[in-house]
Order: sequence, then structure tokens, then C-alpha cells
Amino acid sequence: MSLKLYELTGIDDLRFSPFCWRARLALAHKGLEPEIVPCKFTDKARIAFSNQKKVPVLVDGERVVPDSWDIACYLEEAYPERPSLFGGESGRQLSRFVHVWDDTRLKPALLRVIIKDLFEHAVHPDDRDYFRQSREERYGMTLEELHDTRDAHMPEVNRVLTPLRKMLSTSQLYLCGGAPAYADYAVFATFQWARLTSALEILQRHDPIAGWQARMLELFDGMARTQPAAA
Amino acid sequence: MSLKLYELTGIDDLRFSPFCWRARLALAHKGLEPEIVPCKFTDKARIAFSNQKKVPVLVDGERVVPDSWDIACYLEEAYPERPSLFGGESGRQLSRFVHVWDDTRLKPALLRVIIKDLFEHAVHPDDRDYFRQSREERYGMTLEELHDTRDAHMPEVNRVLTPLRKMLSTSQLYLCGGAPAYADYAVFATFQWARLTSALEILQRHDPIAGWQARMLELFDGMARTQPAAA
Repeated sequence: MSLKLYELTGIDDLRFSPFCWRARLALAHKGLEPEIVPCKFTDKARIAFSNQKKVPVLVDGERVVPDSWDIACYLEEAYPERPSLFGGESGRQLSRFVHVWDDTRLKPALLRVIIKDLFEHAVHPDDRDYFRQSREERYGMTLEELHDTRDAHMPEVNRVLTPLRKMLSTSQLYLCGGAPAYADYAVFATFQWARLTSALEILQRHDPIAGWQARMLELFDGMARTQPAAA
Repeated sequence: MSLKLYELTGIDDLRFSPFCWRARLALAHKGLEPEIVPCKFTDKARIAFSNQKKVPVLVDGERVVPDSWDIACYLEEAYPERPSLFGGESGRQLSRFVHVWDDTRLKPALLRVIIKDLFEHAVHPDDRDYFRQSREERYGMTLEELHDTRDAHMPEVNRVLTPLRKMLSTSQLYLCGGAPAYADYAVFATFQWARLTSALEILQRHDPIAGWQARMLELFDGMARTQPAAA
């Protein structure tokens, strides 16, 4: 077996990309242990063979698969005898809704409040100019201005989290039921990104999402916990 | 078979409740044709036997099942040989995410912009005092004030719709894939509620959600289309 996962690295080799965490957790769910190859934002040449510019990229023998969603679908198809990520075709379609909800609603809301912390604690020195310039252009504001107004944006983070909170406020342990699967990884990866890059308290102690996050951190021998939370 | 569905009725016998449409569509998906019993908001005595105050209530022989989610789960369990609403246990859990997202994010955003239309075009004369008072208390604003400021809330409706739009902007016909299932009904029921109670254009003509809505209106011999859109 020759499995390689190209993933983002930052300051002190911090692996903070939520997209790469999705791929890591999906691989772990399948019981697969890829060789992990770190790349910086500005290391694009390293993944030029994938004909696109973003990590994660999974290489499985001859197959090259970029994109966290496509990686999950590839793993489910290529390793059908291992634990299922989706639980069937309906589960796959609806997992994609959760994945897309996370990308289009949760990540933007969280990024708005952690971006300056993320810049300071996670982005590799070689990537700082690229990151600051591209993000400040996107927001039409400096990272410092974004940071200074973040409290005003916390209610929006909480509103966006409502469906997740409601799902987890019953006796249900995971989004996918009694055991975690892809939809859990897709969203947890985003919390992992926030946890690794910012000390901001996003969840109150008794938030049912916090209990779920703690359970997710324990999975696969505490794989996600091996990277320390931002201080 | 003695199947009865108690559902909300309004002006001119308009059946506008999104929760009741979910139940209707789930029943149609299973090929079941219940007797439909209309109730007004203020008709609570009629469903007192269900030990709660909300429609829909499904009565199947001896079984009494209130709540649109519980009705879907009941139908899936009681009629396993008929077409599946969830496509398995993973599909059921993740359908619930879509259902909860709809209830906690989409409905509130839409209600904010259609509420005065809904009051005028749908709420039964006997229910108008109850509706106005309870809703104005909830918002801390009159229905007229809500209406006058609705344009400012349309961008929020659009933001909330982002994951649905992205799901449907591929070649995928339905949220659940190539054929509709419960998650489609859960969300379409909310669009049906808006369509029946307000002439407000929520979707642009080329919005992929509009194409999906048109397909949903055709299902089950145009069942949802039998109720005319608000003029």
C-alpha cells in the first residue's frame, strides 16, 4: 500500500487546515494510515502533479484525489469492506448537505472571529504576506479591524450553530447517531481548526456541542488531541 | 386501513402549515392516502386526544402520532415494505439534520419576511387575534413594522439558503439524490408554506432552488400544486 496525504502546515509544523483534518479523520475511520506530507500555502509546486492548487491531496498508488469531499467519496468506493463513512447512498447525499453547510455557513462565521489569532498562531512565516493580503482584500478590512469587531459577530456564530446544537441536545452522541461517521468529521474538523488557531471560547461549558467535541477529540486514540489547543 | 391526518386550515380552507405538508408528502411517498381532518389554530379541543396542542397529528388505527418528525419516523417503521423515506439509519440521522436546519434557520428567516402576508392571506378569521398577539409579542414589533422592514432581511434569507443552493447547483435533481425523499419534503414544505401565503419572490428565476421547487411541485400528480400560490 502506498498512501500519501499532502496537508497544510503552519508555524511550528502546526497542522491546522480543516479540510486536511476531514481527510485525516476519514482515513482513520477506514483504518488507513497514510504517509503525511506537509505543504505550506506557498508550496504549490509540491502538489503541481494534482493539477490544482489546494491541499488535501490524497495519492493512493496511481490515483490522485484532491478535495476533502472527493477524498471521502473515493475512500468509500475504494475501501467498501472497511467501516462505512456514509452508511449508504442516502447517507452520502445527506452527508454532503452537512459538509456544504459547514463550508458555506460555519467556516465563514468562525473565520470572521478567529482570523487574527489564526494569522498569528498558525500561518507559516513564509505564508504571512500572502495570507494577510488575500484575506484583507476579501473582507475590505485589516485583520486588526476584524479582530476589534469580533464580539459583535459572536451572536451570528451562535445562530449558525443552532441546528448542530439542537441535533446534539438529545441523548444522541454523534451527528450520525450512536457512532461517528463522515458528517461528524466534516464539522469537527472545523472546530479542530478553531481550537488549534485561537484561544477564543466559542462554546459555553454546558453547550451540547462541547460534549460532542470532547468525544470527537478522543477518537482514534486521541488523534485530534495530539495537536495542542492554542493558548 | 383507518388513517387520519389532522392538519391546519386557514382562510378559504387554505392548507398552509409547513409541518402538515411534511406529513402529507411523507404519507404520499409511502403511497398512503389518509383521511384529512382540518383544524384551526384555535381548534385545540379537536386534537385534545393527542395530549398536546399542535398539528399535524397522525392517527393510524390505535396509534396517535403528533409532530412531523415523529410521523416520518413512525411511517418508516410501520411501513418498511414501502419506499423508504430515509434510505437507512444513517440517512435517518442526517435527514434529521436537514429537518432541524429547516426549522431553526430557514423557517425563522422566511417567516420574518412573509409574516404580514401570511397573516392576511392565510390565517383563519377566528385565529387572527391569537396570531397577531402571539407573534407581535415574540418579535416585539407589529406585523406592519415587520413588513415595512422586510427588504432589509432578504439578504439573510439568501445567506441561510446558501447550503441548499450549493447542493442543488450541481446536476443533482434532489437533496436526496436522483429521487426525492424525506429531507426534500422537510424543506420543500417550508417553500410551499411561503408560496401559499405570500406573493413575495424569494428565489430568482435561475436559482437552482427554483428548479428543484418546480420539480417538487410536480410530485404525486402535482399534489402540492393543487393549492394555488398566493396572488
